Amino acid sequence: MNNMDLQEIGEFGLICRIRKWINSSDPALIQGIGDDVAVIEVGTKVLLMTTDILIEGIHFDLSWMDPYPLGRKSLAVNLSDIASMGGIPKYFLVSIGLPKNLPVSFISSFYRGLKHEADRFRVGCIGGDTSLSQKMIVNICLLGEGKKRNLLFRKGAKVGDALFVSGRLGDSALGLKILQAKKKIKGSEALVKKHISPSPRVELGQAIAKYHLATAMIDVSDGLLIDTSHLLEESEVGARIWEDRIPLSRPYRKCVRPFSKDPSRFALSGGEDYELLFTAPLTMRGKIVSLARSLKIPITRIGEILAQEEGFHMISSDGEDYSPSRLGFEHFK
Amino acid sequence: MNNMDLQEIGEFGLICRIRKWINSSDPALIQGIGDDVAVIEVGTKVLLMTTDILIEGIHFDLSWMDPYPLGRKSLAVNLSDIASMGGIPKYFLVSIGLPKNLPVSFISSFYRGLKHEADRFRVGCIGGDTSLSQKMIVNICLLGEGKKRNLLFRKGAKVGDALFVSGRLGDSALGLKILQAKKKIKGSEALVKKHISPSPRVELGQAIAKYHLATAMIDVSDGLLIDTSHLLEESEVGARIWEDRIPLSRPYRKCVRPFSKDPSRFALSGGEDYELLFTAPLTMRGKIVSLARSLKIPITRIGEILAQEEGFHMISSDGEDYSPSRLGFEHFK
Repeated sequence: MNNMDLQEIGEFGLICRIRKWINSSDPALIQGIGDDVAVIEVGTKVLLMTTDILIEGIHFDLSWMDPYPLGRKSLAVNLSDIASMGGIPKYFLVSIGLPKNLPVSFISSFYRGLKHEADRFRVGCIGGDTSLSQKMIVNICLLGEGKKRNLLFRKGAKVGDALFVSGRLGDSALGLKILQAKKKIKGSEALVKKHISPSPRVELGQAIAKYHLATAMIDVSDGLLIDTSHLLEESEVGARIWEDRIPLSRPYRKCVRPFSKDPSRFALSGGEDYELLFTAPLTMRGKIVSLARSLKIPITRIGEILAQEEGFHMISSDGEDYSPSRLGFEHFK
Repeated sequence: MNNMDLQEIGEFGLICRIRKWINSSDPALIQGIGDDVAVIEVGTKVLLMTTDILIEGIHFDLSWMDPYPLGRKSLAVNLSDIASMGGIPKYFLVSIGLPKNLPVSFISSFYRGLKHEADRFRVGCIGGDTSLSQKMIVNICLLGEGKKRNLLFRKGAKVGDALFVSGRLGDSALGLKILQAKKKIKGSEALVKKHISPSPRVELGQAIAKYHLATAMIDVSDGLLIDTSHLLEESEVGARIWEDRIPLSRPYRKCVRPFSKDPSRFALSGGEDYELLFTAPLTMRGKIVSLARSLKIPITRIGEILAQEEGFHMISSDGEDYSPSRLGFEHFK
């Protein structure tokens, strides 16, 4: 078994093994390895911790990513994890690896972007580490707080619940394709912006948690299909998603054709949407609609939760029932 | 100013700038950027947070570093930071970047090493992130706890205090030289071991804090001279260190000659000792000696704290008073 290399087991195969190799049991640990956010009880408080690493050449390319939005995004991806539990982000540490010939102005731009995002969500930078590195590396560790009875996890979805998603899907992945193609495409600005400067749904996540509107929640970072499958697995349920209900933006519909024969491709298996995907009983629908209206964030019902034996079904626009096979981006594979 | 590059300002110039760019003020923040450990009040608890990034080719070389000790050391360097405040390490997250052709057996060894160190110090792995990467990258973020009235900082040293250091200095840096030379040197095993598997002084740090034996403390990770200068700066004092009092191990004395004309070099400005450097009034000397005896860790008085105007003096073995100029390792420069 151990003669395999990383490519063969893939990112999720690796995480599953790491869980076995190093998982810790502790009565104060509410959620350990296996979710995007760890949850621990410390005294009277419930603390959330999450970390994300961004590596030049893997997660971003300095030929199309400026340091200011890179600073913002480095924090945003962590904020999105805390948002997916309905937590309140508080403090973060930044480890940074930098090539030695990098101009100081580049680095100050990066930190100004980080500061912008930190101020916007009222979180404070409290420390970090710096190192020389061939490629630029950013690792942020974000600490948050939550109320135990409010927090939402990947587990908790019930048969009969509806499946909701915030915002529009696929814009970020299509925006990345457009950046990589290095072509000017009319009307694609919003797509590129969604990739460069995603907006974590912190307020929405907190409201959903506070008003107990959902039974399970996750952020869409690896792609709708793959993140749905995480939620289904942890909740031990199945689901049906109607492809034609998946919310697509106008620029997405307009620009997607040259990049994919399948117009749903980036919405289904592109990553980095940083939207919230959650399940809720249909009785909550009215409250969810009101919340969407008051926060001015679209929330769309895209599917329903089935029993685990029924599996995971996609219903295509022409009514065909298919199984999602290619589940989106996975590191190492 | 901003047309400079990183090489010109160096690691400490960068950290100083980062502090200005992004420092946050928060009444709950006891210690922010500028120390190895951030300290925050959360409810009735005082939490400590620290992070360290290790990058292949910068901090370690896979030609002489096996994955098991690398796992141990990745956590040990963070444990040492918590130890330097007298805190209790509790939970950590690991972000890891891995080349895709890495064997799974390599990665499982790494995590077994991490688990060994975690179990030894009773800390739990609660999460992390995984990514593809050209070079191997490990970033650990460690959360600890402490009692506000016990915690020790870089600041706090008083004129007239004595300066103490635990263990022996220079072994790790000399061990690294020996590894890099790729030569077998008789009697050098302990030096290499100190580099590969440093032992963080967690128990000692906690005892010093608990019994209020010290006025200021730091761990020796960048080298004695540079870490002393951090302590002096934050405490706004000067110091005198007697070179011939610096504790050197027998293998160090035996092996140092072919690697440096100055036999104190690695002890003064080599890094990665992970020993504790602290200041204490001379009245505490008896208690410190007892503690050293009961924990079986040598503690040596190497100098004394002077007024800031007097500066930082080294007294060489032949009585010459000199100013420490080459202060040890600094990233980027």
